[in-house]
Amino acid sequence: MSQLTDIAWDDFRKLSLQEKGPYFRLHGHEGHVIIAQQFDRERLDSLGLLATRIRRIAKTRNGMEFLQGLLSHKRAMLYFSQPSTRTFLSFLAACEILGLKLGEVRDTSISSEFKGESQEDSIRSFSSYFDLIVMRCKIGGLAERMAWLLSNSERPVPIVNAGSGKDQHPTQAVLDIYTLQRSFENSGGIDGKRIVFVGDLLRGRTVRSLSHLLTQYRDVEQVFVAPAQLQVAEDIQFMLKTAGINFTLTDDFRSQLPSADAIYMTRVQDEWDAQKGESGKVDISRFCLGVDELALMNDSAVVMHPLPRREEISTAVDRDPRAVYWRQMRNGMWVRAAMIATIFETHEKIMEWAGI
Amino acid sequence: MSQLTDIAWDDFRKLSLQEKGPYFRLHGHEGHVIIAQQFDRERLDSLGLLATRIRRIAKTRNGMEFLQGLLSHKRAMLYFSQPSTRTFLSFLAACEILGLKLGEVRDTSISSEFKGESQEDSIRSFSSYFDLIVMRCKIGGLAERMAWLLSNSERPVPIVNAGSGKDQHPTQAVLDIYTLQRSFENSGGIDGKRIVFVGDLLRGRTVRSLSHLLTQYRDVEQVFVAPAQLQVAEDIQFMLKTAGINFTLTDDFRSQLPSADAIYMTRVQDEWDAQKGESGKVDISRFCLGVDELALMNDSAVVMHPLPRREEISTAVDRDPRAVYWRQMRNGMWVRAAMIATIFETHEKIMEWAGI
Amino acid sequence: MSQLTDIAWDDFRKLSLQEKGPYFRLHGHEGHVIIAQQFDRERLDSLGLLATRIRRIAKTRNGMEFLQGLLSHKRAMLYFSQPSTRTFLSFLAACEILGLKLGEVRDTSISSEFKGESQEDSIRSFSSYFDLIVMRCKIGGLAERMAWLLSNSERPVPIVNAGSGKDQHPTQAVLDIYTLQRSFENSGGIDGKRIVFVGDLLRGRTVRSLSHLLTQYRDVEQVFVAPAQLQVAEDIQFMLKTAGINFTLTDDFRSQLPSADAIYMTRVQDEWDAQKGESGKVDISRFCLGVDELALMNDSAVVMHPLPRREEISTAVDRDPRAVYWRQMRNGMWVRAAMIATIFETHEKIMEWAGI
Repeated sequence: MSQLTDIAWDDFRKLSLQEKGPYFRLHGHEGHVIIAQQFDRERLDSLGLLATRIRRIAKTRNGMEFLQGLLSHKRAMLYFSQPSTRTFLSFLAACEILGLKLGEVRDTSISSEFKGESQEDSIRSFSSYFDLIVMRCKIGGLAERMAWLLSNSERPVPIVNAGSGKDQHPTQAVLDIYTLQRSFENSGGIDGKRIVFVGDLLRGRTVRSLSHLLTQYRDVEQVFVAPAQLQVAEDIQFMLKTAGINFTLTDDFRSQLPSADAIYMTRVQDEWDAQKGESGKVDISRFCLGVDELALMNDSAVVMHPLPRREEISTAVDRDPRAVYWRQMRNGMWVRAAMIATIFETHEKIMEWAGI
Repeated sequence: MSQLTDIAWDDFRKLSLQEKGPYFRLHGHEGHVIIAQQFDRERLDSLGLLATRIRRIAKTRNGMEFLQGLLSHKRAMLYFSQPSTRTFLSFLAACEILGLKLGEVRDTSISSEFKGESQEDSIRSFSSYFDLIVMRCKIGGLAERMAWLLSNSERPVPIVNAGSGKDQHPTQAVLDIYTLQRSFENSGGIDGKRIVFVGDLLRGRTVRSLSHLLTQYRDVEQVFVAPAQLQVAEDIQFMLKTAGINFTLTDDFRSQLPSADAIYMTRVQDEWDAQKGESGKVDISRFCLGVDELALMNDSAVVMHPLPRREEISTAVDRDPRAVYWRQMRNGMWVRAAMIATIFETHEKIMEWAGI
Repeated sequence: MSQLTDIAWDDFRKLSLQEKGPYFRLHGHEGHVIIAQQFDRERLDSLGLLATRIRRIAKTRNGMEFLQGLLSHKRAMLYFSQPSTRTFLSFLAACEILGLKLGEVRDTSISSEFKGESQEDSIRSFSSYFDLIVMRCKIGGLAERMAWLLSNSERPVPIVNAGSGKDQHPTQAVLDIYTLQRSFENSGGIDGKRIVFVGDLLRGRTVRSLSHLLTQYRDVEQVFVAPAQLQVAEDIQFMLKTAGINFTLTDDFRSQLPSADAIYMTRVQDEWDAQKGESGKVDISRFCLGVDELALMNDSAVVMHPLPRREEISTAVDRDPRAVYWRQMRNGMWVRAAMIATIFETHEKIMEWAGI
């Protein structure tokens, strides 16, 4: 099995995402979590089972004590140089469930970066004090680079990518898959479903990653509903074509509502605007979900959203049983706990626990 | 018993504070802590006993281990969008004493709020990952609104109001009552005492809440000493009149010193200035406590202050045994621990613990 | 034995650093850690042994559980009003290893200091809720002042100085000594070695403190390599002369490389520039270490750096076995844990633990 210690950085970075996937293992088992392309269907399925197991164990006090004892001797660093309260808190809660002690750097203005330190040195510092680094940053590819760097250092601490530039947000993609698994657990699973993505599909990295993961399921149709300026990028379309996936691009949201099994709403990602404010000019009113749109949907369909939302989902939708975005958010905590448990090889202990 | 699930928001918000009080219970026991009006004398007395009990148990290592085991399976979110180091640290320590794991958002500039999320959605997010939310904000009534929202959601997580706008800071008021209880425990308790409030009584929410709670004690006289521009607001005066309480407004501080049982000093709350700097024009030199004023006070009287202070209490006063404001601050930690223990129904376990 | 309760502030502050040292004890044992002058060779040696012991115990899960149980009933406050990610995280990890619960204030803009509170009152507040205060600040002498203040209060909580103004950073100096102890453990220890300091020796407080501690070892030569404007201050030169230490000032880096046992690199501390940017005018290119300089060094010599670094050490040096700065950083965590364990008198328990 290849590892990052076997390859020079300049060779590694030229690989395709598909080729990079297997390299992120550490010590012969799951190590860094950097890109969605690491996750094949088998791994997605076992993570889903583990997440459900953790969720159930956590319901009792006895179970929580078991979970909190698993990694209480480990310390995790949450390094969020790009702000995200939700992802941050979700990882924090996941770590706390497993008993990890925490350190955090959220506001880089208070870090020693003002003293001119390189990102590489900062990460190596974190690896000196912690056993796991969860990092989120604006720079695409940085998590990957850091995984390579640490793998080739004296302390090869695992890195979990909590969002890296416009490209990758693998844990979000896996929690989305888990939410689909749970939503369709009584209707044959994800295979054969029709998934409709809506909104800013150009810059939403969660859509990119999820679209990729869905190619691992049989006969899943992907529909991309967006204004022309925000339609899904060509590399994703190319990836889908190459994988032989049935997909559709459209700007007609209403027409897609009756046949959707899942509607995945997204907000306009204007923090990525090249010039401030250009997103304001896009009319997204036709890409919003309210009670009228809800009425057109199938009874068994679900509405998802990575959150935070703005006006693209009306709050009136919240109480509809098809609105699963709050549950989706909580799923993130369980999936991240499952991933971290796997990194530290405690997954079997969890699956075998006799307390429930 | 009424709960927030039984009433529409538009009906609830029109109720008087007195009427709102009973609604904050959850699952038939103490739930949200939102307004001072929730606390009747019986509850204040039992919280005081519990706080004292926790304080004593915490003195030994064995006791601390007992306390830290009580809620170690729970997670609390400290959401302070209005800054307050003291209240924040006090809640943090209270949670740590009871073993709760913590998450925090203190600086809203690093939260996802910049992505345009509503306060409602932020709070629902927190409720997805945590079992308790302690919140402090500049917006009056927000904690109340959020308590209603969560009570009517799938995860009715309790909210503790750590300061909401200019109106309410109920845990501060309860810790002030506890400090008075302790100060007068050998002199007949709070009943019949003369409490003198001094300083910016218009905008100090602690004074408002404490003034209300004192109406539950027999024959307590309340004296309000302030420059005319900062004298206590008319709604408080009206509340006192309605309750038949003996109270006095004055701007003559010195005349009140000999007869006071407790002097409650406050600082000018200029962060609430409508125009920046208007408070600077008020002459507060006559509303300060130094060694000269101390000399006029009764030997058994106490000096309180919610802190932080500026020049209104001279540091020369600190070493006088009547200066109880440092103890008052530490009381906040015990009272908050008592409140949180009560919310999670561990108060009986604490009262019955045989370790001391 | 003298304590801070035995002396008025105005008398204490006039003492020399040498004279102040013994006063920082609390309750008859190690208390506040404020200045490098507190540490004699005996104490440095026992701290080194304890740090090594903790490091070894922490290698196993069983050992980590033992360590985490030692101070789990205590709470530590990390108060960093001057930013430093590295020192902060190092203390945080050290506290977590010993099981201490944590509170932190890192960004003073979100503290209540904007309400005009004095530093004295802030520290007294922290002492109300916590059992240990680790503080870092820009103001020279503040940690010393606060240690005196708390020693003379009702809660004499120990203070650890994590960097105070331009003068003192005692825990950095002790971890540097520990790194030298480890580096020379098979070559006779620190005695008789030649230590070469390079860079901004005027404003680097770590150099000042380390230079002082080295005077406790026999026949250690100290060499100061810097451009004239950044050469080590006269008070240090005076201290060395008084102690009868052999030392050299030079601006010729290369000439010192062959004979050095340790090269201690530092970066330009331009955050202390009186006028912004004056450091930019100093040519430091002759005070950088790259592979060429490495080639001139002795095989058994080591390269140290307090980090963060800029260009003064080339990243190409990192993989050389003589580059010990990453290990030096991790040593900081062990040494700080050893110090805190000593403050709370658990050092004997650690030395006697039979688990390894």
